[in-house]
Amino acid sequence: MFEFDLVARSGHARAGVFHTPHGDLLTPVFAPVGTQGTVKALTPAQLTDLGASLVLANTYHLYLRPGDTLVKELGGLHEFMQWHGPILTDSGGFQVFSLSDTRKIDDDGVTFKSHLDGAIHRFTPEKTVEIQNNLGADIIMAFDECPPPLERKYVERSLIRTHAWAERCRTFHQRSEQALFGIVQGGIFPDLREQSARFLMGLDFPGYAIGGLAVGETKEQMHATIECANAVLPGTKPRYLMGVGSPEDLVNGVMRGVDIFDCVLPTRLARNAAAMTRRGRLNMKNAQYARDHGPVEEGCACYCCSNFTRAYVRHLSVAEEILAAVLLTIHNVHLLLTLMREMRAAIIEGTFDSYAQLFLQNYRPVEQKT
Amino acid sequence: MFEFDLVARSGHARAGVFHTPHGDLLTPVFAPVGTQGTVKALTPAQLTDLGASLVLANTYHLYLRPGDTLVKELGGLHEFMQWHGPILTDSGGFQVFSLSDTRKIDDDGVTFKSHLDGAIHRFTPEKTVEIQNNLGADIIMAFDECPPPLERKYVERSLIRTHAWAERCRTFHQRSEQALFGIVQGGIFPDLREQSARFLMGLDFPGYAIGGLAVGETKEQMHATIECANAVLPGTKPRYLMGVGSPEDLVNGVMRGVDIFDCVLPTRLARNAAAMTRRGRLNMKNAQYARDHGPVEEGCACYCCSNFTRAYVRHLSVAEEILAAVLLTIHNVHLLLTLMREMRAAIIEGTFDSYAQLFLQNYRPVEQKT
Repeated sequence: MFEFDLVARSGHARAGVFHTPHGDLLTPVFAPVGTQGTVKALTPAQLTDLGASLVLANTYHLYLRPGDTLVKELGGLHEFMQWHGPILTDSGGFQVFSLSDTRKIDDDGVTFKSHLDGAIHRFTPEKTVEIQNNLGADIIMAFDECPPPLERKYVERSLIRTHAWAERCRTFHQRSEQALFGIVQGGIFPDLREQSARFLMGLDFPGYAIGGLAVGETKEQMHATIECANAVLPGTKPRYLMGVGSPEDLVNGVMRGVDIFDCVLPTRLARNAAAMTRRGRLNMKNAQYARDHGPVEEGCACYCCSNFTRAYVRHLSVAEEILAAVLLTIHNVHLLLTLMREMRAAIIEGTFDSYAQLFLQNYRPVEQKT
Repeated sequence: MFEFDLVARSGHARAGVFHTPHGDLLTPVFAPVGTQGTVKALTPAQLTDLGASLVLANTYHLYLRPGDTLVKELGGLHEFMQWHGPILTDSGGFQVFSLSDTRKIDDDGVTFKSHLDGAIHRFTPEKTVEIQNNLGADIIMAFDECPPPLERKYVERSLIRTHAWAERCRTFHQRSEQALFGIVQGGIFPDLREQSARFLMGLDFPGYAIGGLAVGETKEQMHATIECANAVLPGTKPRYLMGVGSPEDLVNGVMRGVDIFDCVLPTRLARNAAAMTRRGRLNMKNAQYARDHGPVEEGCACYCCSNFTRAYVRHLSVAEEILAAVLLTIHNVHLLLTLMREMRAAIIEGTFDSYAQLFLQNYRPVEQKT
C-alpha cells in the first residue's frame, strides 16, 4: 500500500501511480476541495462523471461540525459523504493559523476559537492525527505551522516547531491504511526549504507536501521554492503542492515535479460566476454574454458546455440561481481535471515541454474581456 | 395535437394521455416549477432521471429577466433551458396581482412595478399571450385576475373582467403548436365557479385550469370548489389545478378529477431543509437526525435516499451546503412524481379508492417529530 510507481518522466515532470486503499491515483492529479464533506455544489455522482479521483476535506471544519467522532461512528468520511475514491485531509494547521486574532501558538500546539460559536479548542500534533484517524482519509497530513513566507526570522523559528511536530505526528500515527505526509516549510528561503526537506526525509514519510505557498510571495518565488524543494525530495515518493490550483500554477507545478495539487479555486470561482478557461477567466455576469449563443468555453466537452449557452449561464448567474453554481463548478473542475489528464498523457508521450509551452503562451492569467 | 385521451376512470379520478408537441403527458401529472427557466437546484439531466415530464415556468419572471424576446432569439424556452419535454407557462397574472402595493388594475390590463428595479410595466391579455408566444411553452395560460376567494362582491366583479380577458386571449392567440388554457375563477362560491366554467367552455379551450385556490380558503372549501368546477368542465379536456402540490392536496385533487398540478412546494421546502415524506414533513436540521443512519425516507428509491444518511443530510443542511438543497429537492420532487405514477397505475388497475384512503390515513399534514 502507498507505493508510488513512476511511469514516465519528461524533464522534471513526472507521471506516476500512487496506490491507496480506495484506488490508484494516476498522477499528476488535482483534488477538488470538499471542505465540509461535500465538494460544493456537486453530487458525488457528478464528481465521478467528471473523472475526479482524489477529494480533499478539511480537518478543522469537520472536527468542529459535525465532529470527527460522529463521522467515525457513521462509518468514516468515505461512507459519510459517499465518496468511494481516495480522500486526503489536511491537518487543520492552515485554518487555525488563519484565525490570526483568535488563536495562540505555543510549542505544544495551538489554542483557538471556533469561527462557528467562539468556543475554545486546542489542536496538538497528536490531536490532529487522532481527528484524521477518526475521519479515515487515505492520505493525512502532519500538523505544521504556516509562517509568513517572506519573514526569515519568523520562518526560522517556526521551522523548528514544525519539525518537532512532524516527528510527534510520525510517532503518534499508527494506522497502516492511512499515509501520513510530512510538510516541507521554509518560506521562500532555499536553504531553509532544503533543511526542511532533509529533516522530514529522515522521518521517512510515504509522501511529502510543499506547504506555505500561494500566501503572498511572487510567482517567481513560488516556482523557485518548488524547484528547490523538489531537487531535494526523493524521486520515489509523491510530492504534493498544497492549496495551489489555477491552470497556470498546475502547469508550472507539474513542470517542476509536483504530483498532487488541491485548491478551492475552481469551486469558489464558480460560485462567484467566474468561468476558468484555457485563455483565462470569464465573469459570466458580464452583459456581453447576454445574447451569446456559444458555450462557456469553445471545444469543452463538459456537461455545461455540451448543453448550455453563455446566455443561459449568464441569466442563471445574474438571477443567482443554484444551477449557475452547479454548471460553472462542473465546468471549472472539468477543465482542471482535463488539464491534469492531458499533462499526464504528454509526459508519457514525451511531449510535455511543448504542451506546457503552448498552454502558457495561450493562457492569460487576468480576466479576459472577449 | 393537444388531444386528451382518457385511458381509465376510478370514481372521479382520471388517467389520461395529453398529447403535446414535446411529448405525451401521462396524467395525472405534477409539474415541478422552474420560475426563472430552471427548476431550482436541479440540472435538466437530474429532472429527466427523476422522470419529470412537465415543467412550469413563470411568464412574469422571464419577461422581466432575461426577457421573452431574448429567449425567443435564443430558440425559445425549451432550447434556452435545455428541457426538451413539455413546458407550461402561467400568464403572470398571479404574480402581478401579488405585487399588491405596486400594481394598478383596470379593465384593459394591469400596470405594475418590477420587483427587480422598480421600472413600470404593463400586462394586458394580448401582451401576456405575446410573451408566452415568445417563450414558446406547449401549454400557455389566459390572463386572469386572482381575487381574494372569500370576498363575494370582489369575486363577482373580478369574474366579469377575467371572462373578458379570457375572450381577448382566445382571440389573440393564433399558434397551433401552443395550447391556450382558460382559467376558471369564482372564489369559493359554487354558483360563480359554475358560471365561470360554463362561460369558458363557450370559448372552447383545449384545457381548463382551476385558479385562485390555495390562497386563504380552508381545505374543505378547496375540495368543494374543485368538485364544483369539475362537475361542469368537459370530461374530454384536461383539468389543471394551479399552484397546489402538497402530497395530500395531490391525492385529494386527483380524487376529484384533476389531471395536472404544479407547485413550488417540493423545491422551496427543500431549500429550507424540509423533507416531504408519505408520513408528513421532516425538518432535517433537527438535532434528532444528527446520528441517524437511516435514509431521509425509508423505502424511497431516490438518489438521496439510496445513498445518504439523515445524519449526512442534516450536516449539509446545518452547514448550509448547496448539496443539501440539491439532495432534498431530488427527494421531494421524486416523492411527488412517484405519487402521481402510483395514482395513475391505481386508477388504471381500479384500486384508486383504497390507494387514496390508505395514503390519507398514514399522512400527517403537520411536521412529524419522529
